[in-house]
Amino acid sequence: MTFLASAPAKVILFGEHFVVENEPAIAAALDLRVEVSVNLLDEKRFEIRSGNLFSFVRLDDLLSNHYSVNQHFKPLYIILRKVIEKYGFEGGLKFIIKSPIPMGVGLGSSAAVFVAFSAGLLKAVAGEYDLEKVVKLASEGEILAHGRPSGIDPTISANGGVIVYRKSEGFIPLKAAIPLHLVIGVSGEVRSTATMVEKVLSLKKRFPEIFEPLYHAAGHLAIEAAKAIERGDLTSIGMLMNINHGLLSSLGVSTMNLERLVHAARDAGALGAKITGAGGGGAIISICPQNLLETVASAIKRSGGFPLISKVSDRGVSVIER
Amino acid sequence: MTFLASAPAKVILFGEHFVVENEPAIAAALDLRVEVSVNLLDEKRFEIRSGNLFSFVRLDDLLSNHYSVNQHFKPLYIILRKVIEKYGFEGGLKFIIKSPIPMGVGLGSSAAVFVAFSAGLLKAVAGEYDLEKVVKLASEGEILAHGRPSGIDPTISANGGVIVYRKSEGFIPLKAAIPLHLVIGVSGEVRSTATMVEKVLSLKKRFPEIFEPLYHAAGHLAIEAAKAIERGDLTSIGMLMNINHGLLSSLGVSTMNLERLVHAARDAGALGAKITGAGGGGAIISICPQNLLETVASAIKRSGGFPLISKVSDRGVSVIER
Repeated sequence: MTFLASAPAKVILFGEHFVVENEPAIAAALDLRVEVSVNLLDEKRFEIRSGNLFSFVRLDDLLSNHYSVNQHFKPLYIILRKVIEKYGFEGGLKFIIKSPIPMGVGLGSSAAVFVAFSAGLLKAVAGEYDLEKVVKLASEGEILAHGRPSGIDPTISANGGVIVYRKSEGFIPLKAAIPLHLVIGVSGEVRSTATMVEKVLSLKKRFPEIFEPLYHAAGHLAIEAAKAIERGDLTSIGMLMNINHGLLSSLGVSTMNLERLVHAARDAGALGAKITGAGGGGAIISICPQNLLETVASAIKRSGGFPLISKVSDRGVSVIER
Repeated sequence: MTFLASAPAKVILFGEHFVVENEPAIAAALDLRVEVSVNLLDEKRFEIRSGNLFSFVRLDDLLSNHYSVNQHFKPLYIILRKVIEKYGFEGGLKFIIKSPIPMGVGLGSSAAVFVAFSAGLLKAVAGEYDLEKVVKLASEGEILAHGRPSGIDPTISANGGVIVYRKSEGFIPLKAAIPLHLVIGVSGEVRSTATMVEKVLSLKKRFPEIFEPLYHAAGHLAIEAAKAIERGDLTSIGMLMNINHGLLSSLGVSTMNLERLVHAARDAGALGAKITGAGGGGAIISICPQNLLETVASAIKRSGGFPLISKVSDRGVSVIER
């Protein structure tokens, strides 16, 4: 029997960085999905494949914690062990992970893998899964992979749709009145989210008189954006993305490559464009009229970026049997 | 007899656009100077030359307002008439204007011309000039040339040095503790200051909840910058320029060309770089360690800009006889 689990990538539409200091942010699931197939094995062992990475661990070794695997797979085996210990399992499983989501650019690829993996695993081992358990397991994976993440990524990947998140208030789902078509532009630059967050916080600490009102401005921006999404006002969403981009630039997280992609998208007809995620590299998003998606994607490509045409999706994690 | 009048270009170091809504801004005079030579003529007529533009008007025609000249020279003849009417003059004058300041990019070239012209004219006709009269005449020129300017440009050009300006409080001189070396990057793009100001105000009006705290952030930024200038803290001045640039980006006045110049300057070692003036084109400024001026200038040139190495200067308008 095969279980086919899948979970979506995410984007932060508004409020990254400011969210760290308790301002609201808006994140959304995309129609780009990680797939994890789970097959039952006769042997008592666990195999995981992802692209050309491959590893396996025997059940006994997993439970006694005597194994060594690629760093990349470690959080998955830890999730696996937690689930096996809780529910018991006397067989083996083979996981094959397929992801169209670029890694390390702020699109939540690791959370989507953890979410799909956890859901498929729970289904295979416990016969069912619920979103709360999936988010909890995936969040533990995220902590192992990234240190201290906000929990946005697993939550949005498990639930789908659009959410407003605020540290002090948690997650509130948001209903988009219209389809939100995006062109994402991935820059070639790599960056560490943790480093960027530290850099921004140290700048804020140096100039509190400037950044306190600026952070409030960013908070109001996220609230305006939530309203614009709920009423389906694409023009305002675009303008607010542009404003948000400037605020991120003032935090020092923009780069020449990111500006090139942002302006290429705007100049090609996007309604707005901004850095998404930590900045310093990674990716930009632009919101586009549907008929200009290809044009904007081409412009991003010509400017040295890797374009991904996508849209916000209500679908969260799912598992089908076949 | 010849009078040689000269007056400096200006840059806005901090706070452009925000100044329109009563936040403080900081402007400075540069070591780039307009020169206006004034020669007495035997005939009762006035000649003005500037580059390959040339015009002349007879004294009688000037006083009876029967003349037609190039648009470019109109404010100068109006200043001329005001002075002649007030002080009386029965001769003629020849003015030759030489300016190394690019026009229409926010460096105050027209104000510098009006200031030097007014000072030279007053000296020739009334035997002396004072800064207040010069600023008043030059401001009238500015109103004819640009509509409703703030008065920053003639004030800084006449006085030299660095000033803090706030609408409700006027001008306060600021003493820079160290030389401020700048590389200016002129973009090929032209823009209308009035159009950019309107565009920004309409965006602010659309999203007041966002822009009110953002404008306060910009006001605090100018205050921090004034303190950094007074204590000679180049690192902070640079960081504040970068933050200010992001705020201008959030107002929608940045362009691909301007970002290219800003990032080229930063990447080449400038301590900070930002749009100066209205944006949408025009110029950027970067503050640089003295040993990197040429490097930054080359980087700006390679990025398609026209670099000008300059520094903040205490010299305001001056007139010498020879």
